[in-house]
Order: sequence, then structure tokens, then C-alpha cells
Amino acid sequence: MAVPPDVSNLSLAQDQIVTPFDVSGGVDEHGKAVAIDYNKLIDKFGSRRIDEKLLQRFERLTGNPPHRLLRRGIVFSHRDLDSLLDKYEKGMPFYLYTGRGPSSDSMHLGHAMPFQFTKYAGHNPLLCHCEPLTPVRYLQDAFDVPLIIMLTDDEKFLHTKPEKKLSLKDCRKFAVQNAMDIMAIGFDVKKTFIFADTEFIYGGHGSAFAHNILELAKRTTINQIKGTFGFNDSNNIGEFHFPAIQSATAFASSFPFIFGSDPKKVNKYISCLIPCAIDQDPYFRQCRDHAEPLGFLKPALVHASFLPSLRGAESKMSASDADSSIYLSDTPNQIKKKVGKAFSGGQDTKELHEKLGGRTAVDVSFQYLTFFLESNEELEDIRQAYESGKMSSGEMKARTTKELQDYVGAFQERRKAVTPEIVVEFMKPRQLICKGMPVEKERRMRLMEQKERLEKELKLLDEELSQVSETQQSTQS
Amino acid sequence: MAVPPDVSNLSLAQDQIVTPFDVSGGVDEHGKAVAIDYNKLIDKFGSRRIDEKLLQRFERLTGNPPHRLLRRGIVFSHRDLDSLLDKYEKGMPFYLYTGRGPSSDSMHLGHAMPFQFTKYAGHNPLLCHCEPLTPVRYLQDAFDVPLIIMLTDDEKFLHTKPEKKLSLKDCRKFAVQNAMDIMAIGFDVKKTFIFADTEFIYGGHGSAFAHNILELAKRTTINQIKGTFGFNDSNNIGEFHFPAIQSATAFASSFPFIFGSDPKKVNKYISCLIPCAIDQDPYFRQCRDHAEPLGFLKPALVHASFLPSLRGAESKMSASDADSSIYLSDTPNQIKKKVGKAFSGGQDTKELHEKLGGRTAVDVSFQYLTFFLESNEELEDIRQAYESGKMSSGEMKARTTKELQDYVGAFQERRKAVTPEIVVEFMKPRQLICKGMPVEKERRMRLMEQKERLEKELKLLDEELSQVSETQQSTQS
Repeated sequence: MAVPPDVSNLSLAQDQIVTPFDVSGGVDEHGKAVAIDYNKLIDKFGSRRIDEKLLQRFERLTGNPPHRLLRRGIVFSHRDLDSLLDKYEKGMPFYLYTGRGPSSDSMHLGHAMPFQFTKYAGHNPLLCHCEPLTPVRYLQDAFDVPLIIMLTDDEKFLHTKPEKKLSLKDCRKFAVQNAMDIMAIGFDVKKTFIFADTEFIYGGHGSAFAHNILELAKRTTINQIKGTFGFNDSNNIGEFHFPAIQSATAFASSFPFIFGSDPKKVNKYISCLIPCAIDQDPYFRQCRDHAEPLGFLKPALVHASFLPSLRGAESKMSASDADSSIYLSDTPNQIKKKVGKAFSGGQDTKELHEKLGGRTAVDVSFQYLTFFLESNEELEDIRQAYESGKMSSGEMKARTTKELQDYVGAFQERRKAVTPEIVVEFMKPRQLICKGMPVEKERRMRLMEQKERLEKELKLLDEELSQVSETQQSTQS
Repeated sequence: MAVPPDVSNLSLAQDQIVTPFDVSGGVDEHGKAVAIDYNKLIDKFGSRRIDEKLLQRFERLTGNPPHRLLRRGIVFSHRDLDSLLDKYEKGMPFYLYTGRGPSSDSMHLGHAMPFQFTKYAGHNPLLCHCEPLTPVRYLQDAFDVPLIIMLTDDEKFLHTKPEKKLSLKDCRKFAVQNAMDIMAIGFDVKKTFIFADTEFIYGGHGSAFAHNILELAKRTTINQIKGTFGFNDSNNIGEFHFPAIQSATAFASSFPFIFGSDPKKVNKYISCLIPCAIDQDPYFRQCRDHAEPLGFLKPALVHASFLPSLRGAESKMSASDADSSIYLSDTPNQIKKKVGKAFSGGQDTKELHEKLGGRTAVDVSFQYLTFFLESNEELEDIRQAYESGKMSSGEMKARTTKELQDYVGAFQERRKAVTPEIVVEFMKPRQLICKGMPVEKERRMRLMEQKERLEKELKLLDEELSQVSETQQSTQS
């Protein structure tokens, strides 16, 4: 006899999902989408909140006030940032590592955030009396450390279904296009190495990197990857293997041309700090688990929350949904239209708005200002005006539109200046010039060795070439 | 109430195991080890027996009588050898690919078999009137095609448990030692490229190879690898990923410096024939499954059975059991001692032996003669003498000892001549010179381009070097 199922406990609630491959807010028991709860994520991932004390220490050590993304809790969580600062205080070197999975020809504003945090604080009248929108240098320059930016064209290729017909060549093209966008953020070529996996690893300077990939791959089981990323047996072997590649960048010995060629010394002495969006944390949990058994230093991390989608704070911007995002290539008019259609926290009528006030917590335009507007005072004025109903939704959108048009416009100016020669320069494996890096003398020795090798190769080539010419002559005669 | 289990059907029988990682004969219902049943393997793997008709065609096409390993059914099975010969007949180019997982400093006789088959037929009075033990050229020269030999130092590293403390450097060392042994088999450096994975893939010429690895990895699921190799979720991600690497060597586009730089043309036009021991078949079943969706030609295969262990025909020689194997570095005395202790098919007493005769089917010494003795007539004489009881076990062992001492002695002479310069030459990515390969003209163009690139690089380096010198001077002053 069939018993009707007990539905009294059925709820529409769904947990939020945050992985490198899928980000969406949860659903409450009434089936309504809710924004991502970052406090829950800290608990779930086991990372630590960035608190006021840590910010003060940061300011004391670097002489720079915290970036607005730190001040406003947008960069909100970390792993081992405190012990990294301990080491920095003792004069031990470290480097910054961030990256991007290239996914379309142009990056959107959300993609730019980790890079902006790493480099560019925007117009900051507190810091200097520079022209509006002149980049104010940040994380990398505050510490004066090398920065390595990884473009995972291989990951993009592996994670796209074969039927989508996305070729490796396409992914490589995305990587170069994205690299040009990243360069236009304003990085200093003397301190920054940008690479695309498929080019760098196999281009002749990736041997030490590949060594670390093998060490990591050997220690990572299928079980671990399943537990961390939720893959199953239908995923491909490249997807399972890729985390070892993303992790290898967190170890200084992968880059002997920057950090010197003694891997044991380098891995125990030079730390790595990874500024990234919180969805990348699973990769680096894996990485940190394997660091100690290998005798490597665990990389430290700082996590950013996501720039909300224009559709609302329940999801992040997505390159595959063009109307959810403002692209770095958008025109002023496109920006105006998109912000105009963005989710608003205003009330349904003018009267109601003046009476009840706008809801800044869900107003996408206001959220964008917290990411992009440098002045704390102005942001606070806007918040009060909006919440009290004095500022209308239209005025809010106009203010945000102006801010984003200025940001994107200034970016596009710099982007125009990125020539193919600059791309080659940034992406060439080479010594970087920062505080605490191997001395010039070492660099000179390495260059001399390289020169000797090239001359030898050239000589052999000439010999071979003369043989070919002789063969041709004898064939003709 | 417990019912006693029905044991009437319990048997001690176990199936034979043949995978790249484990080879052992089965166990019969009485618990007795039995030799590997190669007919069963053909059925299980779905390959095809090499028959007399195929051998005759082989002889007709190449003008060479079949190698003794083919004549005697030791190289016994194939995939698509017939259609490869069809293509060869039409003048379409192909190349040979074989390899080895480097596992200790010296190779044993079993390791040498695929290479011997590829190159060296031993003293063959039917073929030429050369001095005894002068190498008679075989497979590669019969077809006049390029040969690519892969040393999987990465596989060795990934498949060794971390607690064994085998470093990647150790594996690389094994690879070079093994490469020197392989060179001493007698390969022609103009037609042969030998590479170790960790050196070649990341050494600056592995980009096209890596491209194919990614294409294969993307199409290979965890499920497929589990089904083919019997791995489980405790295996590491490197082990799961490795088959894509072993497979990539079977596609000509992985080697643009040999076959030209148009991957689409190359992959549809240049076939690959893989002579290997039967335990490697699972790798290439995977490889063949993925070839067609990628628009690549499926590689053809010929499979060899295993040289029996000195302990008996139930297992193959194993590098981890020193007494099971004769090493290419063994002294004449060590060979004598090892053959002396080898499993014999003789009877327990002289009288019984003379009455019943020896059992050649299980006599390890006789089995070795079928692998190493070129003359069919002499082998048949020995068989008849032993089986009729006229030849004693001692005489059989003496004959085999002599044959192996001669073989290993001649090998060791050639091995002494392998200098580090020869190693560099064999392992350098370069054009190979064989029938049907891209014409000299193309080669010349490539060399010119390479020269131009090198000269440019050298110029940049000189500029950089002069800057460093200036910096140093200004620092000193």
C-alpha cells in the first residue's frame, strides 16, 4: 500500500555554490534567490576574516593606507597574510601571483578587480595631488615585489566541451587579448611577468615549472580533486590534472630566471601572496596541502568578493551573459544603457522613494560605487542621500554611469598604447628588478651563459646549413 | 541458523594479468602458476594474429625475410599492420615509434627486445655474408623510415610511491643511461630521435607535442582510464593524465621539426607503426579511440610476447628481481651463473632424460635460443636433440650461455663507444633524413628562419648585457 510522502519538511532552499567553475547565490526557503553570504564562505572554506588590526599593520609596514577594496571589506578574507607580513618585516622576499582564465576577447569590470587591487588604487586625493584618474600604485609597488600573472589558456580549453569547437588556438588568442587588457591596468614591465600556460610551459623556459607540476601531480589523488572541485568520472583527465599546473605558479622555484636556480633554497625562502577572487580558493587549498610534504612554503592568500552582476547581487558578472557585465571595451553609451537597466534598490514610485528611501544593500549602482569610488566621504554622502530618499534612482545611476565611463575611458586610453612589442616584453621569461631579488652580478652571469649557448647553437646551425647547401649543389649538378 | 558455505565449486584458478604495470601468468585450478596464454590475450584485447600471409607480404614489400621474432611467432599480434602496408605500397610515409619506461641504471635482455626487433636481426647468414655478430639492419632500415624512441621518465616518477624517495632527477638519470644502451643497439642517428619526456616536452621544442597532449587529455575521461588501466580514485592525477602523453607520440604533428609544420596535413598523411610488448597495448587502444574524432590517423601496432623470466615462463623478466633477468651489463661469468640456475625442462636423472627427453616448451634456456639464435636449422637441430634426450640440460645451458655471452659481449663493445656527444646528437630535436620526408629545401628554409631568430636573440642579449655592464660600472663608480 503506497503511503503519501511527507512534504511538510520540503523547502525550496538551496545552498550557494562557489567553485572556480560555478558561482551563484543560494535560494531561500520560499524559492527566492539571495546574495552570496561571504561570512558563510569563510566558515566553509576555513579562511580568516581580514580585520582592522591586520589593516593597521599593513598600513604601518608599507606606509600606504589600505586600498578601498580592503577598507570596505570587498577584499575580505585571507590565509596566512599575517605570517607573510612577519616574514616581510624580517626582510624576507616574496612575490605576488594572480591570474585569469581567458574566456573571451574583452575582459569585463569584474575580471579587472584582482588586477586593480594588485596595482591600481584609482584617483586617491588622500595619497597624492595627482590628476584625476592618474593611476595610484598599489599592492605590488607598496611592497616593491615581483608580480607573476598566469593566463590559463589550457584550463579554458580543457573545460570547454569538444562540441563547442573552441580550439586551443582560440584560447591562446583570448590569452593574448586578455594580457593586453591586463597590461593596460598599468603594471610596470620591469617587475611583472605575464605568461600563457601553453606558451610558457613549453616555450623553452618551463622546465623547472614542469618539474613542480610533476611533484604536485604525484601527490594529488583523484579522490582529493573530487573532494575539492566536485568533479566526477565523466570529467576529463586534463581537468583533473590542471590543478597541479595552477598550483605550480605558487612556488618560486618554478621561475629560476626570476628567483635563481637553487630550488631548495628558493622554495624555503621566497614566499608567495595570491590576491584572487574567493572562487579560486579551492585550487590553493590543494596547493597549500601539498606544499609542506614537498618542503615548499605555503602560499598566502587574500580573497576578494565578486563584483555583482548588473542583474543583481545574487550572481557574479559572467562573460557568457553579455547584459550582466560591463566590458572594458564598452562605449560610454553602452555603459549608460547597461547601468540604466541595472537592478535598482529604489522604490516603485517617486512618492514611496521619498518616503521610504532607497535600499543601498541591493542597489547595483550603489554597489558599483563601493568598488570604484575612491572617496569615503563622497560614498557616505551618497549612501545617506539615497537611503533618506533625497537622491533618486536616476541620480544614483547617473553618478555610477559617470564613474564607470571615466574608469573605462581612462582604461581604453592606456589600452591603445599597448603595442605588440610591449606584449613581447611582458611575456618574455627574464629577470625582474625588485627589492631583494638576486643581484645584478648573478643576472650578468646567467646572460653570459645564455650568450655562450646561443653562439654555440648558431655555430652548429651554420655547419648544418653549409651541409644543406652542399647537398643542394650536388643534387643540382 | 548458519548454513556451511558450499565449497564444491571453489577453485584456486586466477586469470593472467597483463597491463603496463603488472604482468603475470594465471594460476590453474590446482594453484599452479601457468605461462601467459597469448591467444587469450589476442581475444581479450581484440587485436589480430600475424599470419603467414602477412609475413609473405611483408617480405615482398621490403625485400627482407621476416625477422626471426616474426618467423617464430614471438612478435605475434598486430593492429592495422595490413592497412599500414597498403599505404606504404602507395608511397605514403610512416614512422616507427617505440619506447621504454626507464627503471634502473642498466637494461636487461627483455628490455632490449623491442629495440632489437626495430633494428637488429643479429647474425643472419641468410641475409648477408657479414662477420658473426655484426648487426644486420632490420625494421627501420627495411622500410627506411624515421624512428622515434620515447623514454617516459615522467611516468616512472609518477608511478613510484613518494615514500620510495625516487626523485625526478633519478628518473632523468635512468632515462639517459637507458638511452645510451638503446643507442648501442646500433641505431642510425640520421634516422632516429630519442627523447626523455621531461627534457623534450619542456626543452623548447615540445609545443606541438603539448598541443596534442591537451587535445587527447580533453577527450579522455576518468572513466575511460579506469576501464583501460584498472586505476582507482587513490591513484594520482599524474598517472591518469600520463596516457595522453604516451599517446601524443603516435601522431606525426607532435614533431614538426621532423615531419613539417602543417599539423592538419601531417596528421592525415603520415602514419605511425608501434612495435611494442603486448603489455603496452592498453595505452594505444586509448590512443586509437581518440585518433578519429581528432581527425588523426590511428597508429598501427605489432605486439611482441615477453622474454621469459629465468625463473620460468609464468612471468616476464623484472628489473626489481635481479635473479630473474640477465642485464646488458652482466659479465660472461654472471651470465653463465644465471643461465646455470635457470628453470630447466630436463628430467630429474640422466637415465630418465635419455629415456623421456627434455621439455623445450618450458625449458628457459631453449626459450632464450628461440629469441636469440638466428639460424632456423640450428634451432630445429637443438630442439630435436633435446626432446629426444640426446642433448642434456647441461649442454643446452652451455649453448644458451655462449649465445647470450656473445650477444651481451658485442652489445657491451658498442656501448663503450657511446659518448656524451653521441647522446646529445640522438636527443637533439632535428630533421631526420629518410625516404619520403620533407625535402631538403624545406629543411633549409627552416634552418634559415632558426638562424635569423637566434641572431636576433643574440643581439637583444648583447644589448641587455651592455646595460648590465653599465649598471655595474655606475654602481662601482
